Amino acid sequence: MTANLDVATDEQRKRVAVLPRTYRLFYRVPVMVDRADGAVIYEPDGTRLVDGYNNVPVVGHSNPVVAERVAQQLLRSNTHTRYLVPGIADFAGRLLNLFEDHLDRVIFTSSGSEANDLAVQVARAMTGNDGVIVTSHAYHGTTAALRDLSPSLSGTGSDDRTGLIELPPDAGDIQAFGAGFLARLDEQIQRLKQSGVGVAALLIDSLMTSDGIHPLPLGLLSEAASRVRAAGGVWIADEVQSGYGRTGAWWGYQRHEGDPDLVVLGKPMGNGLPIAALVGRHSLLDGYGDHSRYFNTFGGNPVCVAAADAVLDEIETRDLRARAVSLGARLADGLSAAFVGAGIPVRVRGAGLMIGVDTGTRGLGPLISDLMREEGVLVGTCGVEAEVLKVRPPLVVDEAQIDEIAAAASRALRRGEFLDAVRGVR
Amino acid sequence: MTANLDVATDEQRKRVAVLPRTYRLFYRVPVMVDRADGAVIYEPDGTRLVDGYNNVPVVGHSNPVVAERVAQQLLRSNTHTRYLVPGIADFAGRLLNLFEDHLDRVIFTSSGSEANDLAVQVARAMTGNDGVIVTSHAYHGTTAALRDLSPSLSGTGSDDRTGLIELPPDAGDIQAFGAGFLARLDEQIQRLKQSGVGVAALLIDSLMTSDGIHPLPLGLLSEAASRVRAAGGVWIADEVQSGYGRTGAWWGYQRHEGDPDLVVLGKPMGNGLPIAALVGRHSLLDGYGDHSRYFNTFGGNPVCVAAADAVLDEIETRDLRARAVSLGARLADGLSAAFVGAGIPVRVRGAGLMIGVDTGTRGLGPLISDLMREEGVLVGTCGVEAEVLKVRPPLVVDEAQIDEIAAAASRALRRGEFLDAVRGVR
Repeated sequence: MTANLDVATDEQRKRVAVLPRTYRLFYRVPVMVDRADGAVIYEPDGTRLVDGYNNVPVVGHSNPVVAERVAQQLLRSNTHTRYLVPGIADFAGRLLNLFEDHLDRVIFTSSGSEANDLAVQVARAMTGNDGVIVTSHAYHGTTAALRDLSPSLSGTGSDDRTGLIELPPDAGDIQAFGAGFLARLDEQIQRLKQSGVGVAALLIDSLMTSDGIHPLPLGLLSEAASRVRAAGGVWIADEVQSGYGRTGAWWGYQRHEGDPDLVVLGKPMGNGLPIAALVGRHSLLDGYGDHSRYFNTFGGNPVCVAAADAVLDEIETRDLRARAVSLGARLADGLSAAFVGAGIPVRVRGAGLMIGVDTGTRGLGPLISDLMREEGVLVGTCGVEAEVLKVRPPLVVDEAQIDEIAAAASRALRRGEFLDAVRGVR
Repeated sequence: MTANLDVATDEQRKRVAVLPRTYRLFYRVPVMVDRADGAVIYEPDGTRLVDGYNNVPVVGHSNPVVAERVAQQLLRSNTHTRYLVPGIADFAGRLLNLFEDHLDRVIFTSSGSEANDLAVQVARAMTGNDGVIVTSHAYHGTTAALRDLSPSLSGTGSDDRTGLIELPPDAGDIQAFGAGFLARLDEQIQRLKQSGVGVAALLIDSLMTSDGIHPLPLGLLSEAASRVRAAGGVWIADEVQSGYGRTGAWWGYQRHEGDPDLVVLGKPMGNGLPIAALVGRHSLLDGYGDHSRYFNTFGGNPVCVAAADAVLDEIETRDLRARAVSLGARLADGLSAAFVGAGIPVRVRGAGLMIGVDTGTRGLGPLISDLMREEGVLVGTCGVEAEVLKVRPPLVVDEAQIDEIAAAASRALRRGEFLDAVRGVR
């Protein structure tokens, strides 16, 4: 790995001279990307890394079907939605067919942040209320408005228009966890009503990824939504992390058989090309359009739409939703076995190919992910204290790669550095 | 044009069933894009339209150099800035070399809206003040925070943190216009200070495009910035419309020999691929990074950076900045002659290939642009009452196409419908 390190050090030197300190690298030994293919990233010295982390390249790094469609469209046209461009409405229709009938309009944007920000604008404008309820370590985006709704970025949030649901501890009883969730939701609804701010929306990722990946009891989000609606608000399903087939359903909220009012799509939509979307009821989106101007220059441009259309082709042709279920089970089992084998008690949570391994211990997530990276596998972390490993490979990952992820965890958990850390903690 | 209309009507029917009423088409006879090349858009029936409007395809529609670079990168890798990817720091360095030395850091985003929103966050966080001063019909983006700073979208703005500079009327004396601008800036600085909100920033497009294209006296923005700094604020130069060589300078603010603290780049940066950037002093951007987390998943992805790098290649290789000056003069002269020839008094303003033709009459802009579209040339409108024609072709426009734009204006101004409208107004 020496050759790599030299190249990486040189690149880091160049980088810190031009990119500000907002830019932070993953891992104590940063990854240097030379090329990437499917669920594998290669470093310049040939080091092969199995990608157990990235959901953006949902149909695989360097997907040739996406590349071909994008390349073709780039040579034909790439204008905006103030003109008619064949294919945009067709794609919008194809996308809306993946949703329940009441979700019948879509606005395209360039990022999940733009789409979530717009969703909150729509909810506030159409309900006449200002309060938005989020979970206590949520991440919904980087705009000024979303920063106040992303306590994982901004801490506890100083904005009195934000209602924070403090998640109960995971004591291993999902029903109790769900009941605790609802009780805390009710508290926030009451607080926002009493302060006069009112309830505009519950904005929630159905797997609460940043909070540590918590699959609520099925159906619970529908119950939550009915309480929010009774207070005058709407349900915004943030599908940036849990959507696009990752859970086996097209959208994470569909596990709950829920009927959100607004749905935000993001990262995987164009397999890396910047495209995202706000899907919603026509009553909300047409209504918003009647009293507010909104135009997104890049949103719905034919090049990014070509990528997004190719992504749907690939998910369908390769049966990736069904594979997410079976491979996800294999991944959860493999990771459980690795931790059990090493004598480390954890809770493994998730759905499909979004798996959280909760170590229950502050900082263990980053250590394990550093060690796994050195064992050739990339995973991330989440949770309030980075105590949870976040494992969510591209959906094109195969059985052998799933097994490599689990095997790398096993090796990492047997390394002296990890054992020393665990001894130190206990 | 009948065949076109049938196709367009069919596409519109499909579109209204899936896109909400936020989506609005240009022109009473909408443009239907079949393909586009350089500064020309072709409709399905072969109708050829000279593009006198779009600044996004700055190096030309369907630019083959951009397409080739993007296609290559798509097959190699497309990850994010949490990993090291060769080329990103090099491109950042190349970009920063186009700015004064004090502007030495860059953050990549996917849109001008994301970059302007971040600029405002940085300005507020680093100055400790909340007030942002904009012109009275400015457009800076679509996020919730920017909507309050984009009176062209939201009307007069209800946010008491927004300071609106009401532009003086253009009486043909640019020095008087500049003095009026400064006087109104001073009023807003005083108002924000007295209300306790304070001054965080002057956020301004150096050509004030949405306000009607007003090239202030050279140097005046530097004077404005010094007054803003004396009040504790910073100067954010919004270069989304006036940047990327359009005025002959790389950036519109450079006409003023000014030294903005933050600079926002947008639309043309990737020739249609969604990439934008916030450039700034390291004291501001590093400082912000030290107390706030910020990460933009798509920002600085290698595919969009490849497009942005190819755009710089094309601008430099084809000498497009110098051409913007000479072609811009030819365009301004041609448009002036067209209006003089038709006996319609106007003021022609602008710099380089950003030209505004101020008719002084509410609604004349849309009528002329509709008629010009029917004469085979696309232009837009701006100004508080849409009284100004906005003419800003891709920088690859050639002399013959410039002359076609002026000729189409001449023909439009002689059409009976226009003559009737002018008679009705007077």
